[in-house]
Amino acid sequence: MGFNLNNFLSSKSKNKRMMEFQDLDHIDGVSISTVSADLYQDPRDDLVLFYFRNGVNYASVYTQSKIISENIKWNLHYRVKKVFALLVNARNANCFTGKQGFKSLEKIAEEVSLHLSERQKADEDQPVKIKPKEIIFGCTGTIGEPFPETKIKNKIPDLIDKIKYTQNKYIWMKAALGIMTTDTQPKMAMEECLIGTSKIKIYGIAKGSGMIQPNMATTLGYIFTDADIPNDILKKLLKKNVEKTFNAISCDGDTSTNDMVTIFSTGEIKHPKINNINDEKISEFDEALNKVLLNLAKRVVSDGEGASKLVTINVEKCRNENDAKKIAFSIANSPLVKTAIAGEDPNWGRIIMAIGKAGVPISIDDLSIRLGNLNIIQNGKININYSESEAAEYMKNDNIEIYVDTSNGSKNFTAYTMDFTKKYIEINADYRS
Amino acid sequence: MGFNLNNFLSSKSKNKRMMEFQDLDHIDGVSISTVSADLYQDPRDDLVLFYFRNGVNYASVYTQSKIISENIKWNLHYRVKKVFALLVNARNANCFTGKQGFKSLEKIAEEVSLHLSERQKADEDQPVKIKPKEIIFGCTGTIGEPFPETKIKNKIPDLIDKIKYTQNKYIWMKAALGIMTTDTQPKMAMEECLIGTSKIKIYGIAKGSGMIQPNMATTLGYIFTDADIPNDILKKLLKKNVEKTFNAISCDGDTSTNDMVTIFSTGEIKHPKINNINDEKISEFDEALNKVLLNLAKRVVSDGEGASKLVTINVEKCRNENDAKKIAFSIANSPLVKTAIAGEDPNWGRIIMAIGKAGVPISIDDLSIRLGNLNIIQNGKININYSESEAAEYMKNDNIEIYVDTSNGSKNFTAYTMDFTKKYIEINADYRS
Repeated sequence: MGFNLNNFLSSKSKNKRMMEFQDLDHIDGVSISTVSADLYQDPRDDLVLFYFRNGVNYASVYTQSKIISENIKWNLHYRVKKVFALLVNARNANCFTGKQGFKSLEKIAEEVSLHLSERQKADEDQPVKIKPKEIIFGCTGTIGEPFPETKIKNKIPDLIDKIKYTQNKYIWMKAALGIMTTDTQPKMAMEECLIGTSKIKIYGIAKGSGMIQPNMATTLGYIFTDADIPNDILKKLLKKNVEKTFNAISCDGDTSTNDMVTIFSTGEIKHPKINNINDEKISEFDEALNKVLLNLAKRVVSDGEGASKLVTINVEKCRNENDAKKIAFSIANSPLVKTAIAGEDPNWGRIIMAIGKAGVPISIDDLSIRLGNLNIIQNGKININYSESEAAEYMKNDNIEIYVDTSNGSKNFTAYTMDFTKKYIEINADYRS
Repeated sequence: MGFNLNNFLSSKSKNKRMMEFQDLDHIDGVSISTVSADLYQDPRDDLVLFYFRNGVNYASVYTQSKIISENIKWNLHYRVKKVFALLVNARNANCFTGKQGFKSLEKIAEEVSLHLSERQKADEDQPVKIKPKEIIFGCTGTIGEPFPETKIKNKIPDLIDKIKYTQNKYIWMKAALGIMTTDTQPKMAMEECLIGTSKIKIYGIAKGSGMIQPNMATTLGYIFTDADIPNDILKKLLKKNVEKTFNAISCDGDTSTNDMVTIFSTGEIKHPKINNINDEKISEFDEALNKVLLNLAKRVVSDGEGASKLVTINVEKCRNENDAKKIAFSIANSPLVKTAIAGEDPNWGRIIMAIGKAGVPISIDDLSIRLGNLNIIQNGKININYSESEAAEYMKNDNIEIYVDTSNGSKNFTAYTMDFTKKYIEINADYRS
C-alpha cells in the first residue's frame, strides 16, 4: 500500500519532532469503527466506537472542573467491572445540555448495546448480552448546544456493522482523526514491554485542541493494552502517570468540562497475575505507560494553535514538588515568556519575572537558569561567559529546554508548553529590539 | 493652540471609549520635566521627573512578586516622611542588575538631590537641602540588562534645568508618553472633588503594556493630589482602592518585578484636617480617587496588545468576595473566552467552562448568565427567549459586559480584561461555524 501517513501529514505539521508517527496495528481484544454522523458541515468521521468483544478492565481520570459534561456524569454514575465499548463523538461536548443530554446517552447506549449484543450472538461462541451501562462515552466539542441524539443514534447500526476483528494502522489513524476537533493533527503513540516473559502492547490516541492552553479545552486520551491488569491497579498506574504527563501540560485545577483519560486492559495476553502496584513485574509496563502518555501529552502541546516550538521547563532542586510545579507552570503559562520564545529572543528576564510571580520564596543568590546547555544565570549572577548571540542561536531550535535550579531542596517538576506565535505577538517578540 | 490630543491619538487608538482624554493642567506643588537619555534607539523622551518643591506626603503599593527590581528595593528601603521627587525611566527595569543596579540609583539620587538643592537655593524663600533618600524611583523595561547609569546621570542637569512651576496639558502628555514602553497610548485621568468646601484635584498617569495580561508586565500608576492627607491615610485609601481597580485587572499574585502605584499629596490646598480613613470629609475624595484609578486601570486593559474590546466581568451573589474574584479572573484569563469575544461569537459555553474550572463550588441550577441585558442562562437553563442572532449582535459592541450570578450569597467582584484578537485566534474564534 503506497499510503504514507508521515507524508500525508507533513504538510499540516508544524513541529518536525511531532511529525513522525508510530504505526499502531492489531491489538487483541480491541475493535475500532468510525462513521460520519454529519455533526460537522464538512464531511468527516465524527463518531468513533471502540468495541471490546470480551469486555475489558478499565480505569479513568476525569476533569477536576466543578461543571462536568453529561457523558462524564454517565461514566461516573455507572461503575461496572468491565466495559464492552467506548463511544466518542466530536462536535458536541454534551455539556450544559441538562436532562436531554443525559437521556440522549441512555437512548444511544441502548441502541449500541442492542446492536453489539446482536454481533455477540452472530460472532461469539459464548455470546453475552451487553448492557447499556457497560458502554462509556467520550464527548468533545461545543458546550451548551442540544446533543444530536438522533443523528448519532441513526448511525449506530452502520457503525457496528463496520466492526472488523483485525485492526491495522489505517483504522487507528481514522479513530485518531475522528475524535479531533480543532486539532490539526491526529495523535497516536505506542510502546511494547514485557510482563514476565509476555510481550505486551500499549497503544494510545489523544486529542487536544488548537488552543494555546490545552488544559482549557477538552483533552481526551485513550490507552489500550492487551495486558491483564485489575481495575484498581490500572487506576493507580493511570493516576500516577497522568500526574507527570497529561497533568504536566495543564495548570492545577484548570481543566475543561470534558477532560478524560481512560486505560483499557483487554487481558488477552496471559502473564503472571499482578496483585499490587509495587509488583516488580509491572515496572516495565509502568515505564512504557508513562512513555505513551508523555508522547501523547507532548503531541497535544505541540499542536497548540500557532505553536512552532515545544518548550520543556525543568524546575529542579526545590523544597517540594509543589514549589517546583508552581514555578514550572508560572513559566509555562507566561505569555511574555512564550512570545519571547516565538520571537526566538533569549529574553531570560521574562523567565525571572515568571519565577518571581510564582509565589514561591526564592533566594536570588541561589538561582541558576540554563537554556539547553547554556548557563545563563549561575547562583544569581549572569554567567560571565554568557553570549547573547549564542543564546539567540539556541532559540532557533524547534525544541526549547529551560532549566531552573533554585538550590533549595531536592524536588523537581517538568512542565511542557508551546510558544505564542503570529502577528498577535509582534510587539512582545520585538520588545528588546 | 491648534494641537488636539484626541485627534493626535485617534489614529493609534483601538477602543473608541478610551480615545477621549481629559486635559490635565496645573496642580499646585507638582512640577514635571522630561528628557531623552537616549535609552531607546529611536528618539523619544524616556526620563520623567516629578519634582515636589515643598515636599509631599506619599504612599505606594508595590508588586507582590518574590523577585523585585532594584528601584522597588530602594523605595522600600528609604522610608521618609516626605519625598521631593519621583524619577521614572523607561527601557530598563533595573531588575536582576544586582549591586550595580542599586548603586546606580544611589549615584543618580545624589545627582538629582544636588541639582534640586541648587534649584531650591535659586527659587525658594526658605530653601531646603534635598537628600538622596527623598527621591523615589520608577523603572520599567527589560529585565537583566545593566542599568544605564551614565546615560541617565548625564541628563539630570538638563532634566532639572527644564523644570517649570506651572504645568499644562502638554507636559502631562509628555510625562505619560515618557513612561510608556510597549503601550500604544499614554494613559491619563483626572477628577475633582470637595474636601469640606475646598476644591481638590486628583490627577493620574499610568503605563501598562502591549501584553495581553497587563499584570504580567510592569504596570505603573502615579496619582497626584493637592489635598493634604497624612501618609497613613493615603496608604489605606490607596490599598483599598487599588484592590478593585489596578488589582481587578490582574490575577492574584500575578505581578511583574516592577509594579508600582504611588499617590502623592502636595497639601497645597488648605482644608479641614483628615484624621482617619472613616472621616466623612474624605468620602468624596475616596470616590474620586477610585474613579481615577479605575479609569487608568481600564486604559491599561484597553491598550493590551491586539485588544479591540474592553470586557467587564461582573460576578454576583457569591458566598464571599474571594469566590467572586476567582470566578471573575477565571473568565478574564480564559483564552477560549477571550478569543470567542474577539470573534464576536456569543459562545457562552466557554464562560461556563471558565466558571467550572475556577474551583468554586457551583450549583448549576442556581446559575444565571447575562451578556449586557440579554439573559442567556436563567437558573441553570437556557432562557427560552434566547436568540443567538441577538447575542451575536450584542458581541459587536466595543464594550462587552458579562454578568454571572451564582445565587449563593451576597458578595460581588468585577474584573476587567480585553479580548484576544488577530490571526492567532482564527481557529478558536471560528470554532462553532
